[in-house]
Amino acid sequence: MSPDLYVDPARAWVARERPTTWPGGAGTAVSITFDVDAELSGAPPQELELLEGVPITESDLGRVSEGQYGIRRGLPRILALLDELRVPATFFVPGATALRHPEAIRSIAAAGHEIGHHGHLHLPDHDVEPARLRDEIELGLAAHEQVVGRRPYGYRSPSWSLSPTTLELLREHGFRYDSSMMADDRPNELVHRSSGFSIVELAPHWDLDDWPWFPLGNPAPRDPELAFACWWAALTEAPEEGRHVVYTFHPEVIGRAHRLPLLRRLLTEVRARDGVWLAPLGEVEQLVRAGA
Amino acid sequence: MSPDLYVDPARAWVARERPTTWPGGAGTAVSITFDVDAELSGAPPQELELLEGVPITESDLGRVSEGQYGIRRGLPRILALLDELRVPATFFVPGATALRHPEAIRSIAAAGHEIGHHGHLHLPDHDVEPARLRDEIELGLAAHEQVVGRRPYGYRSPSWSLSPTTLELLREHGFRYDSSMMADDRPNELVHRSSGFSIVELAPHWDLDDWPWFPLGNPAPRDPELAFACWWAALTEAPEEGRHVVYTFHPEVIGRAHRLPLLRRLLTEVRARDGVWLAPLGEVEQLVRAGA
Amino acid sequence: MSPDLYVDPARAWVARERPTTWPGGAGTAVSITFDVDAELSGAPPQELELLEGVPITESDLGRVSEGQYGIRRGLPRILALLDELRVPATFFVPGATALRHPEAIRSIAAAGHEIGHHGHLHLPDHDVEPARLRDEIELGLAAHEQVVGRRPYGYRSPSWSLSPTTLELLREHGFRYDSSMMADDRPNELVHRSSGFSIVELAPHWDLDDWPWFPLGNPAPRDPELAFACWWAALTEAPEEGRHVVYTFHPEVIGRAHRLPLLRRLLTEVRARDGVWLAPLGEVEQLVRAGA
Amino acid sequence: MSPDLYVDPARAWVARERPTTWPGGAGTAVSITFDVDAELSGAPPQELELLEGVPITESDLGRVSEGQYGIRRGLPRILALLDELRVPATFFVPGATALRHPEAIRSIAAAGHEIGHHGHLHLPDHDVEPARLRDEIELGLAAHEQVVGRRPYGYRSPSWSLSPTTLELLREHGFRYDSSMMADDRPNELVHRSSGFSIVELAPHWDLDDWPWFPLGNPAPRDPELAFACWWAALTEAPEEGRHVVYTFHPEVIGRAHRLPLLRRLLTEVRARDGVWLAPLGEVEQLVRAGA
Repeated sequence: MSPDLYVDPARAWVARERPTTWPGGAGTAVSITFDVDAELSGAPPQELELLEGVPITESDLGRVSEGQYGIRRGLPRILALLDELRVPATFFVPGATALRHPEAIRSIAAAGHEIGHHGHLHLPDHDVEPARLRDEIELGLAAHEQVVGRRPYGYRSPSWSLSPTTLELLREHGFRYDSSMMADDRPNELVHRSSGFSIVELAPHWDLDDWPWFPLGNPAPRDPELAFACWWAALTEAPEEGRHVVYTFHPEVIGRAHRLPLLRRLLTEVRARDGVWLAPLGEVEQLVRAGA
Repeated sequence: MSPDLYVDPARAWVARERPTTWPGGAGTAVSITFDVDAELSGAPPQELELLEGVPITESDLGRVSEGQYGIRRGLPRILALLDELRVPATFFVPGATALRHPEAIRSIAAAGHEIGHHGHLHLPDHDVEPARLRDEIELGLAAHEQVVGRRPYGYRSPSWSLSPTTLELLREHGFRYDSSMMADDRPNELVHRSSGFSIVELAPHWDLDDWPWFPLGNPAPRDPELAFACWWAALTEAPEEGRHVVYTFHPEVIGRAHRLPLLRRLLTEVRARDGVWLAPLGEVEQLVRAGA
Repeated sequence: MSPDLYVDPARAWVARERPTTWPGGAGTAVSITFDVDAELSGAPPQELELLEGVPITESDLGRVSEGQYGIRRGLPRILALLDELRVPATFFVPGATALRHPEAIRSIAAAGHEIGHHGHLHLPDHDVEPARLRDEIELGLAAHEQVVGRRPYGYRSPSWSLSPTTLELLREHGFRYDSSMMADDRPNELVHRSSGFSIVELAPHWDLDDWPWFPLGNPAPRDPELAFACWWAALTEAPEEGRHVVYTFHPEVIGRAHRLPLLRRLLTEVRARDGVWLAPLGEVEQLVRAGA
Repeated sequence: MSPDLYVDPARAWVARERPTTWPGGAGTAVSITFDVDAELSGAPPQELELLEGVPITESDLGRVSEGQYGIRRGLPRILALLDELRVPATFFVPGATALRHPEAIRSIAAAGHEIGHHGHLHLPDHDVEPARLRDEIELGLAAHEQVVGRRPYGYRSPSWSLSPTTLELLREHGFRYDSSMMADDRPNELVHRSSGFSIVELAPHWDLDDWPWFPLGNPAPRDPELAFACWWAALTEAPEEGRHVVYTFHPEVIGRAHRLPLLRRLLTEVRARDGVWLAPLGEVEQLVRAGA
């Protein structure tokens, strides 16, 4: 039991471990996730303001185009690859991306993948006013309902910058899991002490994300072999504690033509590995709760 | 068909794919391009202001000298190498660079290479006022006409930071192609909906640029083998969709004595590879339009 | 004898070499140290302000959770590894971390490891007002006494940013050694000229710290093999001058599941190497003073 | 002949090539240089202000100690290595470093190495007011005369940030060469057009400097093998044009115990290589002028 997240008892959340056994005797659970940021990818908040009143293109089109690649080229390639290798995945989609690219987002749902909430304008949670953060959550929900026809129950904060206000909003809107916090690598949940409401935490990590290795813009990318070795090491170490390994990718990053082979290789080797239970985050959340 | 770039119908541009077959049954098109930034290379905008009223040397001469190397040593070596390997290339030249080094720029044209527009003072498009951006385009055009005696029809934005105002200016001045936006890796064009005017987009990418790997100043360079592997991977993956691979180099970067062997190796292997159509951007643009 | 650290004679400290022979004829002394920053790891000072009046979680929970991992998962794994390999270590603990996680910190002491002072809110010494720095030292001391029941005698500055005021405070509170300054790699001390009071300096170095290689947040990590080679090189070069090699780790960094094998490998090879005296910093300090 | 550095004819300097044949039929000239920045290494200007009125230690002692290592441990090791391998070198010393560490600096001169001017407080030339830059040059000269008893005739700008005002000051004080500008890799000079006064330029380069590879502070160092390969490539490419290769090191960087083997290896292999003329910058300058 970890310390309270809040001193104020009315607002307190506490972390609780949830030991879980994976199906079929698997020693490791693996989830493949994608953040479909598109034009919002890595754009600074001041540029994102423009998205509300005027088109996004009243800013740096070159930078915007790097993100657009994810929708135009990355996503179709990734969906084809997931289909070929029969990998069910979770896609986190900002509301504004869903509104701008409804057909692309519907093609994700049509392929049977899980779709989660990723804010509306991809603003970092802890850096915006509470009223604005409420908009991020609620406009995002409305966009998902309009475009996908389903209300998401899983959340991932843009840039993994969850704030206490986010937790309140997730509770208010009945989210079931969050995949933003990195305090653990085994199933656990955050429990709102006064109400008993809980959010299952399914932890990502920066090392298991394609962004730090291959950022947009002009920092030089790292060695793909180094990225693969790091991703693989997390998997080979996982059975020791029956861990859950969450990989995070971006269509505009890993979907680049010369990088896609790295994803193919990872998915192929994950598929071929014994003792791995491959599942979208929503299924992991259900299992964690069932095992309680 | 991607979403409109503008909501305002009068200003709307839409992206259109242009499936293209390369000559001689080639599976891949490759263009070798150079940005001849010289003294302007990487200098911050506030220093570049000085270029208009006073000589550039009223600033950091050490930094300026890094760029000057490109004209004094890099460019002659590169022209000799292109001649030796019979590689036709595209050189993007800022207007101020042409005015400062007219003989060097004329030697590029004399060797039969294509010369494109690269702004005037190498200011990032999206960061300057519209009137200033107009100067960037129009002073650049005037400088090219004065020094090279030809009006360029291809454009590449400094730092690949195209803005909507750039698009208006490219239309006003009848440019035929742009090589700044990264939303695709196959031939496509931006169509101005109300007029039907179109700009062919020939996409570069940061990974295929020498700058992120070997930046000026004091960030340590990356492993040249890693850069080569990345550049080569883009080429080997290209036949899958008949892609167009655009490499971008800088005489002050790849023209350094200890880095030139990397360019020699890439060009030699590109030359030796079957199924590659090597052409300057202007020829690719013509083919894309002809294939429409 | 190095130059005075102060011109003002009343405040002058001078460095003095302290040639030391290691026990059992060892050519090298090695100390394994950990900075248990937890939630304070890498958080900017403005966020840390919140720690005093309100809970730390009124800021970026995602970032905070990266540090929490060190307590929840990293530290237990590290203590088990140190026990398995019989490695005595030194843990530097900020006061606020001790107050927030008393059981975790007591488990370090219970395992027989040395615990040192690491500020209170992990504020960089040279960047805070003198009165605030006094709080850092004195609140930290009080927290250690409350949680561990012992007053620490060794100090390491957060971010290794010691200031002259720190030295005055270390003298006032009778600290015996500091492990923050990097001016040497052999035993030496700082002597307060007017009083004769001395602080033994046990020098760390950035290269021998896990943080620069695997920073929190989204800079991509470096090659673990490169980190190991660097750490090992410091050890193999050490016998030449009978040096003291101080390694610094963070439970939230090296304690990550996919990185722990690197620590296991280093400790195993250090343990197996002839001519190495492995000791916590406090024992090294005693030996240095005894050898005087 | 490159374009004028100034438009104002009275202030114009022009670059002039100086083809030079190296002694003994050598195809390459190599100079080994060190910047002895000590406490001033990498400190930001605002901290350096303190150096004038109060001791430098009224700032971040941890950072300062990283530089002090260069004097206390790095320099003696380097002088011993140069002596063992019989390598004559050039050391650039800021005036304030000479005043603070007179014995260390005199030991350089006593070993027969050349000593050059490196500013006074190591302030970047282009970032300070002209009056302050004059102090940098003139206080530096006075410190050299006081400590070493000789007036330096070679200059290297801190951070290679030469400004036009620097050039005026170098002319006023009769300097013979500068090693700051990177516009060339063959002997050349800057000629003051109205007076005929000339400064021989002996070009360094960031890649051939140990700092970008192994910076102070907490950016992770690069692979030493990569640094060596880059340094060596500059040498192996040099005979093609009879180039002059200038390596730049810092005692606080390459003098670290675990990095010194890299310098030993480079110097050993340079010594063993045929066709290399190894000389301090001052000898190269004399040869360049003699060959005119």
